[in-house]
Amino acid sequence: MTNYALTIDAVGSGGGSGGDELIAGGNGDRERLARAGLSRVVEPGDIAALKAFDGMPALEIWDRLRQRSRGLERWSTRLAEVDPQRDLERAAAAGARFIIPGDDEWPDAVDVLADAGQLSRRAGAPFGLWVRGRAHLRHALKRSASLVGARACSSYGEHVAAELSAGLADTGVTVVSGGAFGIDAAAHRGAIAASGLTIAFLACGVDVSYPKRNSALLSRIAEDGLVVAELPPGCSPTKLRFLARNRLIAASTQGTVVIEAAIRSGALNTAGWAEQCGRAVLAVPGPVTSRMSAGSHLLVRERNAVLATSVADIVEAISPFGAGLTRSQRAPETLADTLDADLQRTLDAVPVNHPAPATRIAVTAGLDLPTTEQSLEALAALTLITQTPTGWRLSPTSPPQSPT
Amino acid sequence: MTNYALTIDAVGSGGGSGGDELIAGGNGDRERLARAGLSRVVEPGDIAALKAFDGMPALEIWDRLRQRSRGLERWSTRLAEVDPQRDLERAAAAGARFIIPGDDEWPDAVDVLADAGQLSRRAGAPFGLWVRGRAHLRHALKRSASLVGARACSSYGEHVAAELSAGLADTGVTVVSGGAFGIDAAAHRGAIAASGLTIAFLACGVDVSYPKRNSALLSRIAEDGLVVAELPPGCSPTKLRFLARNRLIAASTQGTVVIEAAIRSGALNTAGWAEQCGRAVLAVPGPVTSRMSAGSHLLVRERNAVLATSVADIVEAISPFGAGLTRSQRAPETLADTLDADLQRTLDAVPVNHPAPATRIAVTAGLDLPTTEQSLEALAALTLITQTPTGWRLSPTSPPQSPT
Repeated sequence: MTNYALTIDAVGSGGGSGGDELIAGGNGDRERLARAGLSRVVEPGDIAALKAFDGMPALEIWDRLRQRSRGLERWSTRLAEVDPQRDLERAAAAGARFIIPGDDEWPDAVDVLADAGQLSRRAGAPFGLWVRGRAHLRHALKRSASLVGARACSSYGEHVAAELSAGLADTGVTVVSGGAFGIDAAAHRGAIAASGLTIAFLACGVDVSYPKRNSALLSRIAEDGLVVAELPPGCSPTKLRFLARNRLIAASTQGTVVIEAAIRSGALNTAGWAEQCGRAVLAVPGPVTSRMSAGSHLLVRERNAVLATSVADIVEAISPFGAGLTRSQRAPETLADTLDADLQRTLDAVPVNHPAPATRIAVTAGLDLPTTEQSLEALAALTLITQTPTGWRLSPTSPPQSPT
Repeated sequence: MTNYALTIDAVGSGGGSGGDELIAGGNGDRERLARAGLSRVVEPGDIAALKAFDGMPALEIWDRLRQRSRGLERWSTRLAEVDPQRDLERAAAAGARFIIPGDDEWPDAVDVLADAGQLSRRAGAPFGLWVRGRAHLRHALKRSASLVGARACSSYGEHVAAELSAGLADTGVTVVSGGAFGIDAAAHRGAIAASGLTIAFLACGVDVSYPKRNSALLSRIAEDGLVVAELPPGCSPTKLRFLARNRLIAASTQGTVVIEAAIRSGALNTAGWAEQCGRAVLAVPGPVTSRMSAGSHLLVRERNAVLATSVADIVEAISPFGAGLTRSQRAPETLADTLDADLQRTLDAVPVNHPAPATRIAVTAGLDLPTTEQSLEALAALTLITQTPTGWRLSPTSPPQSPT
């Protein structure tokens, strides 16, 4: 049992000054403070908030909450402890910034969640995003795919996640995942190993190492890529926060690839969000004997996910229509494959070792003698067969006739 | 290299008398003899024959060939050696019968090939079928599926073929395959092990053991099930005969399941025939790291095959529309899953071990106190949480809150 629910979010206990340069921005300051405050007061994806604040500017929501307006009591309990200025400073001290809609770095892709909200009880666009790392979030997400899957994955899943991730990184695709054990970690590591960009969306504060044993990995991601969260610094993950976080992973990338997932899996939740957001949904197949691939197969069978067997499959799916199309794997044609039916039948009837006369070959092939003789000449011209004093035989170099 | 092309078909060299009772049948005698003769003279799926004899009754074709009619020289070379009466006797000696359209045992399903002929160069319905075994061919095929795949399959493929086959046999589905090594053999064995019916369609005579190392298996299939071929006794397989045989496997069953297949594989040819014949096409997924599953994945990605992960998937696909539908695998719902959003948030905020007061839980949950208190009462009524003198905690029996 995971006891993250135990930890009560530490509010504004972080120290350090500075960070003013990060929260500066002219008349954006009040807006930024309001959104930072809201990111602590309103739970991610709170559908009641979506209804109560529908279409209301963030500044107005913030003011109303602070004025203890009637009907908004639901969000009053946390208000007393909220200090957005202190949160921004605390973030800056942890090397993080808080970006909001209108910022150059804001990833417009997540705005789709404002609409998707009608479809689910854990929707809504985030008030802002807390970001740790040097990369430019919007640019990094421009060509990106989410690789998600089971925590308790198999070594097959781990291998495939790392390989696909490295391959995507090689083609300049940013790999997004959730920073968890298993598939997530393998995906992040694969991209890092290939010197590519990777982004972890967390269900806690960007300064919180969850899970603890992934601390080193998360630090590395923040160094080379980005660690992103909609919850302010210090927040702990909860079950609902994981689910709400999934919607950000799905919305912010062009496609979500489920690598291994049991039937009951958060990865399927992310795939559902990707579908609702109009993003590509892919699933990597695996052995039907593996419980860990059952979720992937379910997605393909019942939810029309695209089967992902290679980097090329993923690139094709996340590319604009017509771009990134890959040639499909085709059987390599051998010369014998290109022969017409009579030539092929004649070739089939020519002995491998002991030469046979044309009359015998005609009977074996079930063709008349003139047709057979004509075919034998053609096959000889192609050097597939050889004439000997006692008849015809296959050339030693003739390709093997594998029965199919 | 397989040297089956070396063996020149032994014509009518089989001995033994008897078998008259098998070829009797009133005015069907001449028709049967004509078709038996044609089955030796005309190569399976010979498109030139389809064109030359289009719509012509078998008796007339046979008479014209024997009269050495102009334009039919192509089929003259084998005529001198053909003796259908002797072939029928030889078959009877080997425990086989020759069935033709109109016989009660004739599987009407293969008649679709008369039309499919327009689509390919190796089509056409067979003139007749040579059958070894006690079962009734048409009845046996009434509810049937073909399991096909690579000869050089992996142990995963072999395992899955045997398991699916046994499962199908358990539900009364006849398992059809090609009697080859690998997937074919595993499929036949799986059905036999489950005391089910299995049918092998061969690319040679029903009295020919090809491949040799499968002799015991083929004898066993003929004993418990059926061995079927469109080629007369004594014929050897050739590359083209394998391809022509594939069309019978595809046409005679309600669906073809490709279990493991490389990109270049006869199983994909069978799948193509199934598609042309309007039969269900399924493919079993496997590791994307396995060359042996590449053909299966190709079928799903590019040719719209149904992903087959279980016996139920196959039964659903081969059943008439609406019948045989299986309930899909769903995540088992826990009580906690059925809670509404406020209850779930409250539950998330209740500590596992050290009780917390409602005021603290309200802050953690981000809910107002009245809503929190109401939720706590509801959760206690469901026995998910327990009240203690110092506050609320999870009940010891509460289901684990796996992060998703």
